[in-house]
Amino acid sequence: MENATLKCIVRYNGAPFAGWQRQPGQRTVQGEIEGALSRIANSPIAIQGAGRTDAGVHALGQVFSCQWPGTPPSRLAHAVSCMLAPDIHLVSVEAAQPDFNARFHAQWKRYVYAFDFGRVADPFSACFAWHVPYRVDLDLMRKTLKQFVGAHDFAGFQSAGSQIWETKRTIYTAELLHGGFCGSTDNDHLYRIELTGDGFLYKMVRNICGTLVEVARGRFTPAFAGQLLAAGDVFRGHCAPPHGLALATVSYDPYPGGAALDDADCATLSRL
Amino acid sequence: MENATLKCIVRYNGAPFAGWQRQPGQRTVQGEIEGALSRIANSPIAIQGAGRTDAGVHALGQVFSCQWPGTPPSRLAHAVSCMLAPDIHLVSVEAAQPDFNARFHAQWKRYVYAFDFGRVADPFSACFAWHVPYRVDLDLMRKTLKQFVGAHDFAGFQSAGSQIWETKRTIYTAELLHGGFCGSTDNDHLYRIELTGDGFLYKMVRNICGTLVEVARGRFTPAFAGQLLAAGDVFRGHCAPPHGLALATVSYDPYPGGAALDDADCATLSRL
Repeated sequence: MENATLKCIVRYNGAPFAGWQRQPGQRTVQGEIEGALSRIANSPIAIQGAGRTDAGVHALGQVFSCQWPGTPPSRLAHAVSCMLAPDIHLVSVEAAQPDFNARFHAQWKRYVYAFDFGRVADPFSACFAWHVPYRVDLDLMRKTLKQFVGAHDFAGFQSAGSQIWETKRTIYTAELLHGGFCGSTDNDHLYRIELTGDGFLYKMVRNICGTLVEVARGRFTPAFAGQLLAAGDVFRGHCAPPHGLALATVSYDPYPGGAALDDADCATLSRL
Repeated sequence: MENATLKCIVRYNGAPFAGWQRQPGQRTVQGEIEGALSRIANSPIAIQGAGRTDAGVHALGQVFSCQWPGTPPSRLAHAVSCMLAPDIHLVSVEAAQPDFNARFHAQWKRYVYAFDFGRVADPFSACFAWHVPYRVDLDLMRKTLKQFVGAHDFAGFQSAGSQIWETKRTIYTAELLHGGFCGSTDNDHLYRIELTGDGFLYKMVRNICGTLVEVARGRFTPAFAGQLLAAGDVFRGHCAPPHGLALATVSYDPYPGGAALDDADCATLSRL
């Protein structure tokens, strides 16, 4: 009997987990899902996530791939969700090409990072937004954010601990929007940054968002953020905490609008 | 030095609390707030809430009154919020008439009750919506809800444990709307009921919402909900769990639109 290759979409509240990656003696998202799948399959199942979210980081649409012995049962997604605590929801399971790998075949991803700019933290958003109780200049934050759009060497926004050597990435869109990805709907102080790109280095989104808050507070200049980007060595900015971050989308199709931006596009966008 | 009477608005995530009311050895909202106020005043402060929310019930705009010895410090709301965990946010403190009592002077209140009708619970809404994974008829639910609008004897929707003998209440508005009061913003399965009225009996909102779900699932008829209302004795329906409920608003002004609905209005509304 042949194996089936599966492509699965999963959504989780990262707060109670020690991150995505399986670790002995820790409650991790990968560990919980592998446990449930293995019990249903009655044989060990290993899964490959599109991205390894850190402890406390959420996912609205993480993707993983795995090999299933034989034909998977119908309604597998529902069966797995019912075996797990409400923190994890296996949204869908579908058959994929035999060589499908959720990590290596991803073409673009979208991350969302939420902020609570109220003077006092919102009781309903404390686990889903970074509370920044200072006066911030949102226009300056939005303008500085645009510097990151385009193809850049993001080595200067990568945290230590990564084994990635190729550090050029393309950011397709970078927006500062009103409202969080979760939390109370009657709170005007919630904002989010959405970043879409062909790939992200270790802690790159949190490093960008933390640095932008320092700019918006007046502690870094917008030019300093640009210098960090140009410098290309170790990150010297500010890293935002994990609980504001969610992996929103992983796509296996080309980014709409086609090819990566060329250098002229990037130069234009950087001046916005 | 004379006492000042204060009117305070407070917002809290009810999940980690044993309810509003102070109880020895339990973490309660009233207990936490009284502790913080008493430390700042350097003398014991007792507060009077507009409503006593049960364990797990949330508040977007609970109101309480208290006596303050002398002139309260400026920025008292912020100072209290900073002393407490992010679960409680003291939104505002203002001077009130000397005889102001948050409980007895309330003219109308609004409660909101949230449902997650997805087949699997949303990981971001598990503490802020009742997960109902069954097929529900939302049109029937909306229609049945309208029976409650108007002046009725709600004795049949009161849970045991109350010492209230006058059980006539007027519901001004009852709506079933899309979206929760909190939770993820990309989930179409969240709905909420908003009930506005001149007062609510013990567990009345949860009893109404639980009964409506039984109607929407086809386990009670809409007529049965009407019979419960007419019967006026002990509640024989279904009580919804506490974590979907939030006290949204307490008002000390007459309900806009003026006087309570008359019997003809109620008869009309009941037929909608």
